[in-house]
Amino acid sequence: MTAKAVAPRTPAQTLSPTADALRRELDSRRPADGDRMQEIARYALLAPGKLLRPVLLVAAAEATGGSRDQVVPAALAVEYLHVASLVHDDVIDGDDLRRGQDSVHARYGVPDAIAIGDALLFQVFSAVSECAALGVPDAAVLAAVGVLAQAGEELCRGQLQEALLTAAGPRGCGLDAYREMASLKTGALLRGACRAGALLSGGTPEETEAVTAFGGHIGLAFQMYDDLLPYLADETVTGKPGMSDAVNLRPTFPVLLAYRTGTAADRRRLERVLRGGLSPEATFAALREVITATGSLELAQDQARGEAAEARARLDALPPTEAADVLAAVADLTVRRDR
Amino acid sequence: MTAKAVAPRTPAQTLSPTADALRRELDSRRPADGDRMQEIARYALLAPGKLLRPVLLVAAAEATGGSRDQVVPAALAVEYLHVASLVHDDVIDGDDLRRGQDSVHARYGVPDAIAIGDALLFQVFSAVSECAALGVPDAAVLAAVGVLAQAGEELCRGQLQEALLTAAGPRGCGLDAYREMASLKTGALLRGACRAGALLSGGTPEETEAVTAFGGHIGLAFQMYDDLLPYLADETVTGKPGMSDAVNLRPTFPVLLAYRTGTAADRRRLERVLRGGLSPEATFAALREVITATGSLELAQDQARGEAAEARARLDALPPTEAADVLAAVADLTVRRDR
Repeated sequence: MTAKAVAPRTPAQTLSPTADALRRELDSRRPADGDRMQEIARYALLAPGKLLRPVLLVAAAEATGGSRDQVVPAALAVEYLHVASLVHDDVIDGDDLRRGQDSVHARYGVPDAIAIGDALLFQVFSAVSECAALGVPDAAVLAAVGVLAQAGEELCRGQLQEALLTAAGPRGCGLDAYREMASLKTGALLRGACRAGALLSGGTPEETEAVTAFGGHIGLAFQMYDDLLPYLADETVTGKPGMSDAVNLRPTFPVLLAYRTGTAADRRRLERVLRGGLSPEATFAALREVITATGSLELAQDQARGEAAEARARLDALPPTEAADVLAAVADLTVRRDR
Repeated sequence: MTAKAVAPRTPAQTLSPTADALRRELDSRRPADGDRMQEIARYALLAPGKLLRPVLLVAAAEATGGSRDQVVPAALAVEYLHVASLVHDDVIDGDDLRRGQDSVHARYGVPDAIAIGDALLFQVFSAVSECAALGVPDAAVLAAVGVLAQAGEELCRGQLQEALLTAAGPRGCGLDAYREMASLKTGALLRGACRAGALLSGGTPEETEAVTAFGGHIGLAFQMYDDLLPYLADETVTGKPGMSDAVNLRPTFPVLLAYRTGTAADRRRLERVLRGGLSPEATFAALREVITATGSLELAQDQARGEAAEARARLDALPPTEAADVLAAVADLTVRRDR
């Protein structure tokens, strides 16, 4: 027998105990034989997923001195918010696949998909409020209500901005505008999850600001890397057609980088392609060509990794705990989504 | 000169000082030169309307000993919730007119209509939370958060039930099922507005239950009468095409009454018409004929008035105040919507 070296845990392995516990909680709260609303909510909530946002809330709470048991309902709340936004997003984008299965509207129809998304948004606030009965002071629960309401509103604002940037095309969408949009559309809820966790746990102001800034940086890293994924992997990895952004002619991060760094001919080609008219496959292929030729894939990865590193640096303000390791693992995971 | 008799105020006149003050508040909170999200929210929120739900919240608070100034943000919150549900409803139903103007999706497109509805739902909870800074105890604010979250969830559940009842047709939808659906779809928010007002004002448990029950009864009266309106008036009165329910083949209150009280031939005709296939005009005309022939218009009005009377009776538990008069006026208004 040879001595086995202990393999270092991957980020996903570091997260999985917390994620598994939260998934069991999600599952137990909605009986499989419930009414139609519960059936659809189960379908949407229990699709395969990493539960990144609830894991973040729990880890942020624990890393700032709180107890997991007191914040579990709030952790579920951020997943409700996230899933509600996915359900509505898929209606808006006409995406029929999500997480490797039919999207909610593809399975249950658009009217019920809109209604179930709304119902989940309300459940966000019922769930957060439950923390008061678990011993979290009322003022802290109210603060968390405010943080999640603001995060949700920012998420919607980010979606509206994305539509405007898409209409403007690559010439009209600078990288600053992209960062602002991503900071709202994706960053807001990751920030909000971290901040709500710290507020519910009674973290110090410094700790609260540190995890909030951490959430902001992983939000950017996450969106940048998400934009890259279609060009790095096939669609079996994300469970979502990789061409949705291309079909919707969105100015994604690598496209914008290619536009900034490319030649005049590259820019003209990107503008032409993003005016529409080509098939999804031809659009995607053309974008991939320019992105590759300009080295934007590597550039985009570097920038995403830079944001993840910024996020990790914010964790220096926290005492060393297992929960802080979980936060660090989330930062790593944002730029290596397939592990 | 002759002495003028003082004409008694109509219900709408009794409400209007409160409604006008709330409309000014709604208006002042969103600058006319705001970003696209604020522009669309203004468009949706400032369309002509009676602001019944925020008026109810303010009146319920004042009628149970509270001060208006402390609950205005919560009053706006219930209007956000209501308008968000209207915006999403219009998307679902494909209704292009609302309150006498283009519906939000008709004017701004479906994606932005879904996003703005979501944004307003989040603003519900930001707004309610503001009451804490106005001196309402945190526990009462949290209770109001919970009440509005529950009301919103019930509203969504009512929409899903309505879809199931529509699919079931008049044979599969009894009057009890109708009442339950209406109690959720319409009653929940009227109940929630009244209850939140009483909780925020620190009303006694008896007062809080009285205004909650009041809200439930006016909810039923309101939905019953709303179902009648297309058969009583032309579409200029409600600002909404009167045939939407008929187009969507919904088993509305007068239709269900006609089905219960009609002959076997009437029932067969209703079943046939509600299986679809006729033009909207022909559907509407056929429903109107059976409803009229069976005397269901009068029956439906009687039942709606009965609910309004039940609602008024609940107000006996409150001390006599001007605010209680406003609540009574709302009860009256539910069954005479055009005044």
